[in-house]
Amino acid sequence: MSTEFDTRMMARALTLARRGQYSAKPNPHVGCVLVRDGEIIGEGYTQPAGGNHAEVQALQAAGDARGATAYVTLEPCSHVGKTGPCADALAAAGVTRVVAAMQDPNPIVGGNGFEKLRAAGIAVECGLLEAEAERVIPGFVSRMRHGRGRVRAKLAMSVDGRTAMASGESQWITGPDARTDVQRLRAMSCAILTGVGTVLDDDCSLTVRAEELGLPAQEAALAAQRQPLRVVMDSRLRTPADAKVLDGSAPTLVCHDAAITPSPALQATSAEWLPLERGRQGLDLSTMLDQLSTRQCNEILVESGPHLAGAMLQAGLLDELIIYMAPTLMGSNAMPLLQLPLDRMAQKVPLLIEDIRAVGRDWRITAVPG
Amino acid sequence: MSTEFDTRMMARALTLARRGQYSAKPNPHVGCVLVRDGEIIGEGYTQPAGGNHAEVQALQAAGDARGATAYVTLEPCSHVGKTGPCADALAAAGVTRVVAAMQDPNPIVGGNGFEKLRAAGIAVECGLLEAEAERVIPGFVSRMRHGRGRVRAKLAMSVDGRTAMASGESQWITGPDARTDVQRLRAMSCAILTGVGTVLDDDCSLTVRAEELGLPAQEAALAAQRQPLRVVMDSRLRTPADAKVLDGSAPTLVCHDAAITPSPALQATSAEWLPLERGRQGLDLSTMLDQLSTRQCNEILVESGPHLAGAMLQAGLLDELIIYMAPTLMGSNAMPLLQLPLDRMAQKVPLLIEDIRAVGRDWRITAVPG
Repeated sequence: MSTEFDTRMMARALTLARRGQYSAKPNPHVGCVLVRDGEIIGEGYTQPAGGNHAEVQALQAAGDARGATAYVTLEPCSHVGKTGPCADALAAAGVTRVVAAMQDPNPIVGGNGFEKLRAAGIAVECGLLEAEAERVIPGFVSRMRHGRGRVRAKLAMSVDGRTAMASGESQWITGPDARTDVQRLRAMSCAILTGVGTVLDDDCSLTVRAEELGLPAQEAALAAQRQPLRVVMDSRLRTPADAKVLDGSAPTLVCHDAAITPSPALQATSAEWLPLERGRQGLDLSTMLDQLSTRQCNEILVESGPHLAGAMLQAGLLDELIIYMAPTLMGSNAMPLLQLPLDRMAQKVPLLIEDIRAVGRDWRITAVPG
Repeated sequence: MSTEFDTRMMARALTLARRGQYSAKPNPHVGCVLVRDGEIIGEGYTQPAGGNHAEVQALQAAGDARGATAYVTLEPCSHVGKTGPCADALAAAGVTRVVAAMQDPNPIVGGNGFEKLRAAGIAVECGLLEAEAERVIPGFVSRMRHGRGRVRAKLAMSVDGRTAMASGESQWITGPDARTDVQRLRAMSCAILTGVGTVLDDDCSLTVRAEELGLPAQEAALAAQRQPLRVVMDSRLRTPADAKVLDGSAPTLVCHDAAITPSPALQATSAEWLPLERGRQGLDLSTMLDQLSTRQCNEILVESGPHLAGAMLQAGLLDELIIYMAPTLMGSNAMPLLQLPLDRMAQKVPLLIEDIRAVGRDWRITAVPG
């Protein structure tokens, strides 16, 4: 039986969880609040990989946690990873009640943490603000439940739905606030996916740049510490060996046609090479996503041109669209938002628009394909 | 010197003014509040053409208005139109102070109403909530100041900026709430402008339908009573004589190439025929707008396909865009929002986005070309 007080404490734990959204990856970012006699005695959230989990962080803050209730946004772990199991730590500290928002979504280990706690005589409740907790770590939940992370495409367009002039001229459609927002999307992501066309056109680095996150210095430094995996779809291996995505400033995975072998110059870079089958629609995107899942990629950001994003959408592989709409008209000759050849109204793709809000002088549309 | 109380009363008068926004045309919709000893003793707003102006309506509601202050959103008229001058009526009723939001924007008659009041010994103040008052009657203000009404294009698109499939298939992109909203835009307008292509494709009637306004029955009936002028740009006179726009259910003006004469069948309809010069870009849009101004058109709604709307935009003749965005993707083969052939980023048209809001399941973007 949870009370209004319990709900308030869990909401606080969810707020704490979000503090780890840029730095905890590939771990899920979790929040923990320790309460005794109606007072918060310790708080914590997941530290960068290798550091403390939320529970241990909160226990250290509390010092003495005997008789306390722990509010956690995810079931405490029961296995030894880079750190000891949090369930053991809570029991050892004398916590007497654990309120969790959700069970570990991994069907194989889910529930083990609760069992360990109950075996230690701790009262366990689960399910308080569960939907909210799932929304804090959607990529982790998706990967654990469905074996695949959450794929989000970031796009930038004019009001008339265009991304670049026919000539390819395109840079700086959106303003500085939108670019800061994109840096944060990158920092939230375990992988950033693009096509070789974008690499050739823009020589993009696809890294998180601490100074462009618009966050306090320490938080920004942590967010940029573990760079997302850069993933390039490059069937014919046209990426130049001196491209920024191959500069070693972040890990890179290049997916290419299995029939082609990377040149010695490419193999001399620090990139990893992933041969894939090539069908009529291009490289096998589904296998690519499976590969990212085995690499613990929870949230995957697609930052590509209209072809790759359009192909992902048509293959049903996009979970979310984030579209930055610049206050401008680029005209009817300009390039489309997505390469999406449809002929009949019946084929049109329904969207659920979850949110539209101003981001500086631009507008951000968040939508889920229906 | 206006007080906070004065401001509150003027805000009330502006609210009243908006009650006439669908029914007062072509008169500007005005609101009036009569106050004595800190109490509202009468209220009024512009009645349908031929009926009372706001001031007379408020005086009738008050009965005895001696010693009262009148708050009016526009300078009281001094001329005899379909009704007697309001300035005289206020003086005859014994009103002792008039607070107006704005002077009559017609530079020739503006100020005469105030002079008449002052000559009658009434204290006159002007300028309270002036900008707000101008925004209530933007079309009238524009026509009086610049000799041309306010031109607003209504467009409907998918999130990727498309209006119809390449085949022309298009109807019902937007939902019922957006269509109600469009009916209200029509009811606010003195003229609805379209191209012959839309007439041929949709056989649209372009009328205000009382039952689709989503307003109380009496208000809806008044709003639909005086139908906007239907204006068809049809250089080669391709409109069939049995088209709905020629059915006489509302006045219609067909603009055509001066070199062509309407057929006897067309001339037998109730439509008016306006020959215009035809240049390389099509019919002379500027002269057409001047003609609408002489017909007292304050607000003009463009409901056309991408060609006419694009041509109006490129000619600098659009004051506002109202874009209904449906939650769908129509793909890269579909028709553009506007026929607007631009080649370089430097040519792109900046917009000032004034508002984005949900209208049922669709979103309405209000923007001003920069």
